[in-house]
Amino acid sequence: MTTDAPSHHLFHWVVSLSCDDGPGIVHAVSGAIVAARGNITESQQFASLDTGRFFMRVQVESPAGREEFEAALAPVRERWNMTLHLDEVGRPLRTLVLASTAGHCVNDLLFRQRAGQLPVEIPLVLSNHGTLRDLVDFYQVPFESLAITDAAAKRAFEQRVLDAVDEHDIELVVLARYMQILTPELCDALAGRCINIHHSFLPGFKGANPYRQAHARGVKLIGATAHFVTSDLDEGPIIEQNVVRVDHSRSVAELVAIGQDEESRTLSQAVKWFAERRVLVDGARTIIFR
Amino acid sequence: MTTDAPSHHLFHWVVSLSCDDGPGIVHAVSGAIVAARGNITESQQFASLDTGRFFMRVQVESPAGREEFEAALAPVRERWNMTLHLDEVGRPLRTLVLASTAGHCVNDLLFRQRAGQLPVEIPLVLSNHGTLRDLVDFYQVPFESLAITDAAAKRAFEQRVLDAVDEHDIELVVLARYMQILTPELCDALAGRCINIHHSFLPGFKGANPYRQAHARGVKLIGATAHFVTSDLDEGPIIEQNVVRVDHSRSVAELVAIGQDEESRTLSQAVKWFAERRVLVDGARTIIFR
Amino acid sequence: MTTDAPSHHLFHWVVSLSCDDGPGIVHAVSGAIVAARGNITESQQFASLDTGRFFMRVQVESPAGREEFEAALAPVRERWNMTLHLDEVGRPLRTLVLASTAGHCVNDLLFRQRAGQLPVEIPLVLSNHGTLRDLVDFYQVPFESLAITDAAAKRAFEQRVLDAVDEHDIELVVLARYMQILTPELCDALAGRCINIHHSFLPGFKGANPYRQAHARGVKLIGATAHFVTSDLDEGPIIEQNVVRVDHSRSVAELVAIGQDEESRTLSQAVKWFAERRVLVDGARTIIFR
Amino acid sequence: MTTDAPSHHLFHWVVSLSCDDGPGIVHAVSGAIVAARGNITESQQFASLDTGRFFMRVQVESPAGREEFEAALAPVRERWNMTLHLDEVGRPLRTLVLASTAGHCVNDLLFRQRAGQLPVEIPLVLSNHGTLRDLVDFYQVPFESLAITDAAAKRAFEQRVLDAVDEHDIELVVLARYMQILTPELCDALAGRCINIHHSFLPGFKGANPYRQAHARGVKLIGATAHFVTSDLDEGPIIEQNVVRVDHSRSVAELVAIGQDEESRTLSQAVKWFAERRVLVDGARTIIFR
Repeated sequence: MTTDAPSHHLFHWVVSLSCDDGPGIVHAVSGAIVAARGNITESQQFASLDTGRFFMRVQVESPAGREEFEAALAPVRERWNMTLHLDEVGRPLRTLVLASTAGHCVNDLLFRQRAGQLPVEIPLVLSNHGTLRDLVDFYQVPFESLAITDAAAKRAFEQRVLDAVDEHDIELVVLARYMQILTPELCDALAGRCINIHHSFLPGFKGANPYRQAHARGVKLIGATAHFVTSDLDEGPIIEQNVVRVDHSRSVAELVAIGQDEESRTLSQAVKWFAERRVLVDGARTIIFR
Repeated sequence: MTTDAPSHHLFHWVVSLSCDDGPGIVHAVSGAIVAARGNITESQQFASLDTGRFFMRVQVESPAGREEFEAALAPVRERWNMTLHLDEVGRPLRTLVLASTAGHCVNDLLFRQRAGQLPVEIPLVLSNHGTLRDLVDFYQVPFESLAITDAAAKRAFEQRVLDAVDEHDIELVVLARYMQILTPELCDALAGRCINIHHSFLPGFKGANPYRQAHARGVKLIGATAHFVTSDLDEGPIIEQNVVRVDHSRSVAELVAIGQDEESRTLSQAVKWFAERRVLVDGARTIIFR
Repeated sequence: MTTDAPSHHLFHWVVSLSCDDGPGIVHAVSGAIVAARGNITESQQFASLDTGRFFMRVQVESPAGREEFEAALAPVRERWNMTLHLDEVGRPLRTLVLASTAGHCVNDLLFRQRAGQLPVEIPLVLSNHGTLRDLVDFYQVPFESLAITDAAAKRAFEQRVLDAVDEHDIELVVLARYMQILTPELCDALAGRCINIHHSFLPGFKGANPYRQAHARGVKLIGATAHFVTSDLDEGPIIEQNVVRVDHSRSVAELVAIGQDEESRTLSQAVKWFAERRVLVDGARTIIFR
Repeated sequence: MTTDAPSHHLFHWVVSLSCDDGPGIVHAVSGAIVAARGNITESQQFASLDTGRFFMRVQVESPAGREEFEAALAPVRERWNMTLHLDEVGRPLRTLVLASTAGHCVNDLLFRQRAGQLPVEIPLVLSNHGTLRDLVDFYQVPFESLAITDAAAKRAFEQRVLDAVDEHDIELVVLARYMQILTPELCDALAGRCINIHHSFLPGFKGANPYRQAHARGVKLIGATAHFVTSDLDEGPIIEQNVVRVDHSRSVAELVAIGQDEESRTLSQAVKWFAERRVLVDGARTIIFR
C-alpha cells in the first residue's frame, strides 16, 4: 500500500501489539521507535492481570517507510514473541456491511463514512432483502440482495459473504442489524473481524425481541451493545455499550425507536475504534485504547 | 395524624390511586377536588395498555382537613372501585433499614434524611453485624445487631423484623445492602413495602458477585437497580436504575468502589419516590410519577 | 384538514393550552372532554410559580370531529381566557429547513422524517450554499440555494424565507446549522416558531467557534442546545440540551466531530417535541411535556 | 517517608512528569525504569499541541527504594529539564479542608476517606461557621471554626490557613463549599494545590446563585465543576465536571438539592485524581490521566 518516500516525508504509523507481560517491553518498543527516527504522538498500554498478557498501541510519526519501520520492530517482535500489527493512521479499512430491512445503522455508517468521520471504505452492502437499495445507492455504494428463504439459500448467502471477503480483501464484516444468526462455520471464518450490534444492554436481554422483554420487565434504561461475533450467540467480547433513560409511559414501539439511536451510534463507535486499531482482545474481554 | 384545622390553614394533600381505565375518571377526581375547595399543584396520570389499569397522582392545596377531603373523594372511590391513598405532602414515612456490614447505602440514607432531602423517619437500623453501630449512632438513630449464624438465628432475625414493623408502625422496609435472602414468608409479609438495592444493572447479572461477573464479561457500563422485593429473587418490579461507564483497566475491587456510588444514589432515589407516593405498581412493572 | 367522520371512528386529539392559574381548570377541561365523549390517553400540567400561568397538554380519543370538539371546549376557553391549540395527534407539521454547508443535522432530520420517527413534512430545504443539494435530493425533498454575498443578498434570502413560509403555510422553521444571524425583523416574523441548534452547552459558549473556546478552556463535557430564536442572540428559551464527555486529548477538530452527534440528536428531539405540541413557552423558559 | 527496604520487597512508585516535547523521552524514561529493575503497571502520556509540552505518568513496581529510584531517574530528568514528581502509590495526601455551613461535600470527603476510597489524610477541617462541628467530630477529624465578620477577621482566617498549611505540611487545600472568595495573596500562596467546587457547569453560570440563574434561564441540565483556584475567579483550570438532567418543574430549592449530589461526587473525584497524581496542568487546561 505504501512505498517508501523521501525522508523529508513523515509517515504516521500505528503499532498495536500484545505479548506475555514482563519487564522491559516498553523500553524495547520505544527503543525500536527511536531507531526508526520516530516520535510518539499517542501511546496506551495495559497489562491484564486476568491473562498475564501485555497490550500496547502506539502512534508514531517517522520518516521511515514500512520496510524500515518493520525492520526496526522485528527484533523486539521476535524477542517477546509479539502479535504485532503495523498500519498507517487513517488508512480506510475495507469493510463489508451485512444488512436486512432496517436502515438506521446502515445510514449512520454510510453517512459518517462519507462525512470523513469513519476511516472505512465499503465496497459492498449485502442484504437478504432489497429494501435498502435506494438508501445505499444514494451513497454510491454497491448493493446486492439475496433472499434467504431456506437453508440452501442461507448457505448461498454465506458463501457470497465469503466470496466477497476474498474478492474485496475485506478486513471487517459489520452486521448492521442483519437479523440472521451466522452459522458456526461463518463465525469461525470471520473470527475477530466481525462486529454485531445487539439491540439490548447485554447481558440483559439476549435473544429476539429485547425491547419487548425490556418493556415487560419495566427497566428504566434501555441500551445497545456492539460485540465481536462468536459462535456462542450474543456472548462475544463486548466492544461498546450505551444506554438511554426511558420511563413507564413508553410503548414497545417507542422503545424500539429510542433504541435505534443507541444502536446506530454504538455500532459506528465500535467500527471506528476497530478501524483505528484501538480494539484488542484479551480472552473474553476487549481492551479499548480510546 | 391530622386534625381538621381552621379553614384559613391550607393542607397539602397527595392522592395516589389506581382503578380500571375508562372515560370520565379525571373529571370525577377533579370534581371531588373542586368540591373540597382544592387547587391542584401537581398531577400525573397513566393508562396502562398492558393491564387496562389507570393510575393517577395528584397534589392538592386545600383548606379541607382529612375528614372533609376523604368525604369528598369517597363517592368517586366507590364509583370506580379505586385503590386510593390519601396522605399529607412531606409527612415522613416510617422506615426500617436492614443492613449488614457495608456502610455506603446506610450513610447515604441517613445523611440525606438528616439534611432534609429524604422524607422518612428511621426508628431503627437492624443489622446482622455490629460493624455499622458507630455510623448509625452518629446520626442518633437506634441500632440493633443480631447475628445470623444458622437457620434458627435467621428465623429470629426475621421475627425481630416483623416485631419492629408492628412496634414502629413501619410503612417501608429498606434493604440497604442487607446481603441476606429473605424467606418467602417475610417477602409476602412485606409485599409492596420492601425495597432492595441490587448491585448490578438487572436483569444483567443476577445473584452473587455481580461485579466479578461484570469484570469477567468486560461490560462497558456497570450499574445498580432498586426494586421491590418479591419471593422471586432479583425479579421484583424495578423502581430505578443507574449506570456508569467503566473500561478494561478496572479491577473487580475498583468496579465495586465505583458501583457503590450508583447503589447509594439509586437506593436513596427509590426511597424518596416511594416516600413521596410516586411509585405505583402495574403488574410486573412500576409507574413512577417523577 | 379533518372532516367529521361517522361516530364509530375515533379521532385522536391533542389539546395544549395555557391561562392564568386558579382552581377548577382541570375539572373544567376534563368536563369538556367528557362532554365530547372523549377518553384521556395522556395528560400533563404545570403551574408556574414564576409567572402564575397554568399549562396543560391533553391527548384525547373521541368520536367527536373538530367542530364538535371545539364547541365543547369553547366555553372553557372563554371562561379562562385560554391560549388553546387543538390538533390531531401525529399530523405532520409543515416545516421549512434552513441550512448552510454542514449536512449532519439536515441528514438526521430527513432520515428520521422518512423513517416515520419525526412527524413533520418538509416542503423545502433552503440553503445559502449548494453543498447539500445531493443529500436533500436523495430524500426527494425540494432544495433551493441562494448565495448570501452581501447585505442585499441577505435581504433577498430572508424575503425568500418569508415567501416560502406563506407559500407552504409553514408552521415551523428549523435552523439546521444555518450559520447566519437572522435580522431582528425575521426573528420577529418567526417568533415562537423558529428553532435553532447552537453548538455548545448554552449559556456556556455563546457566539462563534464554541468548540475552540471549549478546547481552550479545557472543559470536560461538550454539548449542544436547541432553543427558540429571538432577536437576543443565543438567548432564546432553551428547548433541549445534551452533553458528552471529552478529555484533554481531543483536538478542536475532534470536538467538532463529537459535538455534531449531539447537535443532530438535540435538534431532532426539539423538533419532535415541538411537532407533538409538547413545547410551551413560559416567559424566558420552556415547559416540555415529555 | 520511605526507607529503603530489603530487595525482596516491592515498592509501588508513581512518577509524574512534564517537559518540552521531543523524540526519545519515553525511551529514556523506560530505560531508567529498567535500570531500577522496575515493571510498569500503568502508563499514560500526552503531547500538547497547544503548548508543546509532553506529560507522562507511570506506575512502577520495583525493589528499588526512593534513593535508588531517584538516582536512576536523575540523568533523564536533567537531560530533558523535567518537572518530575516521585511518590508512592496510595500514600495519603495531607489535605486541609475549608468549609462553611453546607455539609454535603465535607460529609462525602470524610466518608470516602474513612471508607478507604480517597487516599488523603485530613488533619483539620477549618470553617468560618461552627455548623459542621458535630459532623466532623463523628469522623474524628479535628475541627476549628473562626468567624469571618469583617476584613480583619478574613485576614486572620487566611493567616490561620497558611499556618495550618505549614504546621501540617499540607499538600492540598480543598474548598468544600467554603463560599468565601480567597484573596489574591492566598490564591498565589496555594497555586496549583487548591481545588474548589463550583456549583454550576462552568463557564455557564459564574458568580453567586448559579441555581437561581439556571432556573431563570430554564436550562435542561445542571452541573458542577471542580477546578484549581486562581486569582481569576471561577476561571482556574477545570479538573472535572458532571451534569444531571432537570426539567421545568424543578424549583430553585430542588435544583439546589439535586445539584448538591453532583457537587459532592465531582469534588471527591477531583480530589481523588489529584491525590493519585493524575492531574497535570497544561497552561489553562488540565491533563487528567484517568
